[in-house]
Amino acid sequence: MLPKNAVRNFQGSSSLADLFSLSDQTNAISFSGGYPDAALFPQEKLQQAFQQRLATAAPDLFQYRSVLGDLNLRKKLTNYIHQLNVECSVENIMFTQGGQQAIKLLASLFLNSGDGLAVEGPTYIGAVEAFNEYQPTYYEIPMESDGMDLDVLEEKLQHHQIKLIYTIPNFQNPTGYCMSIPKRKRLAKLAATYDALIIEDDPYRELRYAGESLPPIKAFDQTGNVALIGSFSKILSPALRTGWVIAAHSIISDLANLRLAFDCQSPNVVLEAIDQYLTDNCLSDHIQKLRNSYRQKLAVMLNCLQQYLPNECHFSKPQGGFFVWVTLPQDLDASKLLHLSQQVTFLPGKDMFVNSHPINHLRLNFTGTTLEEIQRGCQELGNLMKTALVTTPK
Amino acid sequence: MLPKNAVRNFQGSSSLADLFSLSDQTNAISFSGGYPDAALFPQEKLQQAFQQRLATAAPDLFQYRSVLGDLNLRKKLTNYIHQLNVECSVENIMFTQGGQQAIKLLASLFLNSGDGLAVEGPTYIGAVEAFNEYQPTYYEIPMESDGMDLDVLEEKLQHHQIKLIYTIPNFQNPTGYCMSIPKRKRLAKLAATYDALIIEDDPYRELRYAGESLPPIKAFDQTGNVALIGSFSKILSPALRTGWVIAAHSIISDLANLRLAFDCQSPNVVLEAIDQYLTDNCLSDHIQKLRNSYRQKLAVMLNCLQQYLPNECHFSKPQGGFFVWVTLPQDLDASKLLHLSQQVTFLPGKDMFVNSHPINHLRLNFTGTTLEEIQRGCQELGNLMKTALVTTPK
Repeated sequence: MLPKNAVRNFQGSSSLADLFSLSDQTNAISFSGGYPDAALFPQEKLQQAFQQRLATAAPDLFQYRSVLGDLNLRKKLTNYIHQLNVECSVENIMFTQGGQQAIKLLASLFLNSGDGLAVEGPTYIGAVEAFNEYQPTYYEIPMESDGMDLDVLEEKLQHHQIKLIYTIPNFQNPTGYCMSIPKRKRLAKLAATYDALIIEDDPYRELRYAGESLPPIKAFDQTGNVALIGSFSKILSPALRTGWVIAAHSIISDLANLRLAFDCQSPNVVLEAIDQYLTDNCLSDHIQKLRNSYRQKLAVMLNCLQQYLPNECHFSKPQGGFFVWVTLPQDLDASKLLHLSQQVTFLPGKDMFVNSHPINHLRLNFTGTTLEEIQRGCQELGNLMKTALVTTPK
Repeated sequence: MLPKNAVRNFQGSSSLADLFSLSDQTNAISFSGGYPDAALFPQEKLQQAFQQRLATAAPDLFQYRSVLGDLNLRKKLTNYIHQLNVECSVENIMFTQGGQQAIKLLASLFLNSGDGLAVEGPTYIGAVEAFNEYQPTYYEIPMESDGMDLDVLEEKLQHHQIKLIYTIPNFQNPTGYCMSIPKRKRLAKLAATYDALIIEDDPYRELRYAGESLPPIKAFDQTGNVALIGSFSKILSPALRTGWVIAAHSIISDLANLRLAFDCQSPNVVLEAIDQYLTDNCLSDHIQKLRNSYRQKLAVMLNCLQQYLPNECHFSKPQGGFFVWVTLPQDLDASKLLHLSQQVTFLPGKDMFVNSHPINHLRLNFTGTTLEEIQRGCQELGNLMKTALVTTPK
């Protein structure tokens, strides 16, 4: 017999695993994943970057190196971060295996069992899975169209010890909502007042298709109470598994020590190839291409949802990111809808709430499908909902 | 103010970090790290492999993919594993970010606070740091020149709940010792009898410079009670950050779910480039080169230790791996020796014991230095020891 799994990890399945397996279902149109459009990867230029850097690098490219990651790439990142009005030196940055690892390391560094953790309701399911191992006490802060409800958060902060506040301020996963500037300012202040650390997860920042870019919460952070996470996954390629965390030097230093026991460091080869790519190419131009394509996909999805969804169903109208959030009438169970569906997959929202688990939400991704698939998928979704509305008892 | 670190991770420094920083000290001869010789990396062939694979791959090379890692590379690995008399299909393998991540994931999957964990005394410090987060109850099993003392282990298994047994059977880090075949057989049986899982960490298997290769403990495992960890770090390049874990399907499946929340998956780009390298090159030929070089370095180190160390000091005589283990007279503190030393660095052994912490051991690495440095370093070490012996009160 084998020893039993840890109590912390006893569950037999993972919502993230379900998500990935839904995304791999090939005979249905998939709105379920969070995949970028593979047709838009700058494959040739990335290939040239690898070739160029590997051909010219010293042998120590293949040796163990800094746990923080390639210094030149950290320098380039500071230039970008300065444009966001965030103070940052190369000592404030650690590259991680995607943004996911940054979330995991921050959770591991700060969370004891029972520690207070505020998250948006709904929130990113992968973050919740990273947090769950540390058995925090969750506070679910309702999401509004201009970001989390800070009155609720403040009330919780007043009455409970809350150590971490996890938020996705731009084009939130799963709602697509952005946090307003006044809320960003107030949130930074609340964290300082109540000795909490904000984990600002910002993978979609550059994928804005309309409106003005908003400063990160970290730009309003006077006290080091914000850790800002970013990633190349959505703007370059997820297979590079390269994200970063920017935080006070003391936090980065502790994260780096912790990281050594997790996986030592990122693969230099990849970091240096990205550095080469950024030397030889204009990432902004590439991002502009992504924006043009995704803007069109989002517009088509919003039009089709307007056209095909029954009036009882509502949906968010994001200005960027990867997702649209659909709200069904209260009694309609999105999971049941998914099981009825043969031709389209999506992600029921229930597990994206850490406490309340309402059944009547679902998340749609629009970046990983073609325009034609978006149209067909939305039409199919509309039909499903109409049928369900007729058969669901009031 | 910032929230406090988790109790589990409150320490301000990391032994691993100290180790890496010792290794980076450039004005001294470093016997302290665990670095391969950078001059031996097959840089040109790795570069060709990246170039070839990136030039010919489909765009989904850059997309999210299987959490287990590239299927072709898993197939190649099964062929190698079969040669070791271990049954293994592609479903029994997950590629990880170096062997280090495999240790971390297994610890996370199985260990609750207080769970019993048997480790060799001394053992690999990076494993201990990975385990510490889960606050296990450690059982330190004395290391003998033919592997850990199984009588002591059996006695502990009889009287305590021990969930995991961590061992490095080949050229152990830090002693350089190998576990004998009878002990391997008995250990596999003990694990099955007492429902423990053996973590068999085997990064040095192929780096044997004399004697016959020994079957892994997993070859004697009838019950799925062994997880076997391997790595390309020492035989190809640590910067690729590519290791693997081989275990029962149920364990791999749980590890894969867990992995999604850690960092989603390995970078495909790297795994596919390794696959290309293995398609185009004979890894055995490369390993033969490593063996020839390291064999010579080891011989020089053992000769020099014989020549320069005072008779009161003893050292292991390994047949492979990266390390020689030195035992000083009982009262001589290796840490004090290190602080006296200007021209040579090494790793004091104290923190490599989870419970007993004897002060009179040190670990020497011989792969990361030149022959001339090995000679000079050993001479310096000998002088240090002789001086210390004169001044240390008996």
